[in-house]
Amino acid sequence: MTTTSHNTNRSGLMILAAIVFIPILATVLYAADTDAELMSRAKTIFGTLPASMPSPDNPITPEKVKLGATLFWEPRISVDRTVSCVKCHPLGLYASDCLRKAIGNNCKENPRKAPTIFNAASQISEHWIGNRSSVEDQAKQALIGPPSYGMPDYASVEKVLKGMKGYVAMFTAAFPGEKDPVTADNFAKAVGAFERTLITPSAFDDFLQGKTAALTGPQKRGLKTFLDTGCMSCHSGPFLGGQMYQKFGVFEPYEKYTKSVKVDEGRFAVTKVPGDKFVFKVPVLRNVAMAPPYFHDGSVDKLTDAVTIMAKIQLGKNLNAEQAEDIAAFLSSLTGRIPQAVLTVPVLPSEN
Amino acid sequence: MTTTSHNTNRSGLMILAAIVFIPILATVLYAADTDAELMSRAKTIFGTLPASMPSPDNPITPEKVKLGATLFWEPRISVDRTVSCVKCHPLGLYASDCLRKAIGNNCKENPRKAPTIFNAASQISEHWIGNRSSVEDQAKQALIGPPSYGMPDYASVEKVLKGMKGYVAMFTAAFPGEKDPVTADNFAKAVGAFERTLITPSAFDDFLQGKTAALTGPQKRGLKTFLDTGCMSCHSGPFLGGQMYQKFGVFEPYEKYTKSVKVDEGRFAVTKVPGDKFVFKVPVLRNVAMAPPYFHDGSVDKLTDAVTIMAKIQLGKNLNAEQAEDIAAFLSSLTGRIPQAVLTVPVLPSEN
Repeated sequence: MTTTSHNTNRSGLMILAAIVFIPILATVLYAADTDAELMSRAKTIFGTLPASMPSPDNPITPEKVKLGATLFWEPRISVDRTVSCVKCHPLGLYASDCLRKAIGNNCKENPRKAPTIFNAASQISEHWIGNRSSVEDQAKQALIGPPSYGMPDYASVEKVLKGMKGYVAMFTAAFPGEKDPVTADNFAKAVGAFERTLITPSAFDDFLQGKTAALTGPQKRGLKTFLDTGCMSCHSGPFLGGQMYQKFGVFEPYEKYTKSVKVDEGRFAVTKVPGDKFVFKVPVLRNVAMAPPYFHDGSVDKLTDAVTIMAKIQLGKNLNAEQAEDIAAFLSSLTGRIPQAVLTVPVLPSEN
Repeated sequence: MTTTSHNTNRSGLMILAAIVFIPILATVLYAADTDAELMSRAKTIFGTLPASMPSPDNPITPEKVKLGATLFWEPRISVDRTVSCVKCHPLGLYASDCLRKAIGNNCKENPRKAPTIFNAASQISEHWIGNRSSVEDQAKQALIGPPSYGMPDYASVEKVLKGMKGYVAMFTAAFPGEKDPVTADNFAKAVGAFERTLITPSAFDDFLQGKTAALTGPQKRGLKTFLDTGCMSCHSGPFLGGQMYQKFGVFEPYEKYTKSVKVDEGRFAVTKVPGDKFVFKVPVLRNVAMAPPYFHDGSVDKLTDAVTIMAKIQLGKNLNAEQAEDIAAFLSSLTGRIPQAVLTVPVLPSEN
């Protein structure tokens, strides 16, 4: 009796164990399978983050990067001595600012929100409407941009820089063999070389490289929703954007949802082609969670609202609150690691 | 003959050696003597730089310093989201700015030049006219100062900070046991604690500690001229200033030399005592070479000009160009070493 009872108990326990553990095991296996599938799908779509964003026109050298990283903080080359790159691209706010539209010299408003310069050199062009061909072009034109540095001409910038021995030495080191290295063109090359190093790998890249635990449950659900909804058809490539121009408001006018005060005709201002009305460059989504307010005019404060509006007017899809939150969670996995050297304030050369 | 000739030659050489080397030796010994004397004299006058600038009202803790170092960079608590401590106190420019008068929210001009916050907590009071009792008082009042952060009240600042989880966690850690730690008072304590650590030892301190080679020849001559002229009667203590109020323009009105556009009545605005007309706090001279333009209104660009004017109108002495240059060289030995942690940009909490 004892033996039988014992056996019966053992069988019962095994059945109980099977009832309890097999579904758990199945869930775990299924999740692992789903994770692997999601990872593989994402990797196919987004590829792998490169180590830098080189340009054949402006090779990256340590001396140029050092000079560029210093000039990035330099306000004395602006017309009112208040504007430096870092004014509109504060590094602690992921190199964007927290304003609807960037503010330049003498409180002049720029036409659009300051885009982050992290990962920016990966794009087909710079600025929301692609009116700057490269990070170097952007940097150079900013010096004489009326709502930016506002200098009257490049010679005025060069004169200020030449007046500081510290800069003359740094330009000479960064552009060896040049007779007159302190030029606006070399300012642009130095700042550009610095920006070409500004890549911010994140938890999402860890996930793509096989660490399934790098993303949380909501982030994985959000990634799946991001792919299933079709967001990645524009936000493509390893930087999730920056590779094409698209009309903002395919299904409905954007201002209906963004409540934008003024309607911006976008790239039409550059090309004058009627089909470019309301067309903007698709922005890079890396670090997007850290850089509100959203869109070219900073008209939307919350990331979930921005996600919902994008699905609605670009893809004609209504996301529910949970889906929008999941996508926002996924987007937060794109918040990257900023290299310590980038977060170091350079001591600027003396004027005395 | 040979021997005699040899001896004669030897004697001649010894005489020659004595003629050549004794004066050199004397100069070296005299210089060493002079250096030691100068060092001893300077040490008696200036004392030793302390390791921190504590306050019994606001003990320095690592958590408070960390929070303060972060809040120092935070623009989202200003009325137009452009003003943070670092706006007027950029660390790469030795925590002053390069403007004649500081510019706050919406391009509003402050009444005077932004003083550096390095070593500032050592002073008898803050601001040029001593209308802030401490660095904490300065930080708190800046939040609602109309030309500064411009917030309508402290509650508005607290509301913004409470909206960011990252800050709630940091305030809770910095002010343990407090029920409602996210307050403007605690903002002031955190920023104050950070500022109380901002001491910048320099080559001059190395010299005072016995390293005579830490100062160059012109710097030593400048130090001697600084002492002989009487500059140290006001620029006293280990920070070379910040310990008293003095009339600016004892011998002649300052505006005659500074060409100031507007005459500032200084501390009279605080005390309404007639004797306080044109009285200002004697500024700390540490890092002065790195922080032009000079004086309360930034009216003078060059350090040598500022030195010449000070000798003329404060002490009634005419320095020649070499003396002014030597004093400027000495002042450049007060350009300090900024701790690496202070030169690190904090990543700011997310609004999402």
